[in-house]
Amino acid sequence: MGVRAVETETKAEGTSVLSLEELRARLQAVGEERYHHKHPFHLLMHEGKLNRGQLQAWALNRYYYQSIIPIKDSIILSRGPDPVFRRAWRKRVVDHDGDATSEGGIKRWIKLAEATGLDAADVRDGKGILPATRFAVNEYLNIVRSRSLLEAVASSLTELFSPNLISLRVDKLRQHYPWLAGGLDYFEARLYQAPEDSQFAVNYVHDHAKTRAEQELAIQALRDKCDILWAQLDALYFAYVQPGWPPPGAFQIEGK
Amino acid sequence: MGVRAVETETKAEGTSVLSLEELRARLQAVGEERYHHKHPFHLLMHEGKLNRGQLQAWALNRYYYQSIIPIKDSIILSRGPDPVFRRAWRKRVVDHDGDATSEGGIKRWIKLAEATGLDAADVRDGKGILPATRFAVNEYLNIVRSRSLLEAVASSLTELFSPNLISLRVDKLRQHYPWLAGGLDYFEARLYQAPEDSQFAVNYVHDHAKTRAEQELAIQALRDKCDILWAQLDALYFAYVQPGWPPPGAFQIEGK
Repeated sequence: MGVRAVETETKAEGTSVLSLEELRARLQAVGEERYHHKHPFHLLMHEGKLNRGQLQAWALNRYYYQSIIPIKDSIILSRGPDPVFRRAWRKRVVDHDGDATSEGGIKRWIKLAEATGLDAADVRDGKGILPATRFAVNEYLNIVRSRSLLEAVASSLTELFSPNLISLRVDKLRQHYPWLAGGLDYFEARLYQAPEDSQFAVNYVHDHAKTRAEQELAIQALRDKCDILWAQLDALYFAYVQPGWPPPGAFQIEGK
Repeated sequence: MGVRAVETETKAEGTSVLSLEELRARLQAVGEERYHHKHPFHLLMHEGKLNRGQLQAWALNRYYYQSIIPIKDSIILSRGPDPVFRRAWRKRVVDHDGDATSEGGIKRWIKLAEATGLDAADVRDGKGILPATRFAVNEYLNIVRSRSLLEAVASSLTELFSPNLISLRVDKLRQHYPWLAGGLDYFEARLYQAPEDSQFAVNYVHDHAKTRAEQELAIQALRDKCDILWAQLDALYFAYVQPGWPPPGAFQIEGK
């Protein structure tokens, strides 16, 4: 499960327990500093400056992240002693794996990858994904297995920030890459799923972090989760934008 | 523990069990393709083209790798049912943690980091290491915990390749960065430690992989280990060479 990240932020703000509003403000500040909405790979995407091969590399690698989300949520389910908690959290597994009435987020991401021109079977197999993607994503599993349930729940709180990013992304993808328009169902669904989830998780963290120290651990878990998202885009940028050096065995953009 | 890497190599060579010589040849071929002696960050280092700040970033991040080696070897010890195996493997923990007669590899790496101008306490705290370093290194722990003992042992086999790289590195560091000369004890020790270790591990893999399928799993473990080393240098290159964008919270080169 690895060794925990060392906290890089000071805790000098005090030791009193944060109110719900103060907690929300601290979580928002983490997002401002570290959420991947500011990552240069996303900025290029939103400016229409990625080519099809770069979008393929993104869809392929990000699929690995998508594919483990219901695994990480199942780990959290397995650690939740309370049926009421599990009933609420189970929604996330359904959202991604689907049910009789919905195909689920993983299938929708496959459709996005197909819209970029990738073969669905290759995407499912993870053929050519960057090792750095695997390492970052597996760290998410390490966190929900090895830390407290409180921290595991808190690590999901990037969903506080995702609706704004997804709204922007959907607009920009339609504008700059109209050939992708048929593959955007994943994002449409997340626009209403994520706010429900993050509201539950913020309340859970506030209710279950009984001390300031526990609140700080929860905030650190969100920081670490942001690092996991950011590192995935760093690896994509390095391999496929600049300098553009995919490691041995990784996906190569056609025609390069 | 994450989801295992998908094999990117074909296994079309056949299904018969490899002889010791054939196994060695296959392992060497993995090294030729994937070991980090060919990584552009190392090439810059050996050409004398890294500045002090870049060498600091390397020493700082690589310390995290060094620091978990005896942890991963202790995990392997904990999984070895045979006292004879454990007695042989225990040497590795001693090599890195030290004993009454030797300071050990971790302490020697700290001396190298100090020779670059870093503060020992900051290095030990992991202050400012790249998240991507943590993720890659933690994956090494995932592998030795979650795969078979055979694969855990095989993942150490990058030591087949390290003496050549270290010999070259010591020469080049002395030549291009003479101010580092006082910090090279780590490498001097590894030059005689690593060959003993890799000889034991190759023989172990050959003796304990009873089928071709098991041999292929061992070869894949070495490939995955090479990816772990390679990804660490990709992250350094991206953050500190080109484009030179350390992620939020990471070590910054002074004067930049």
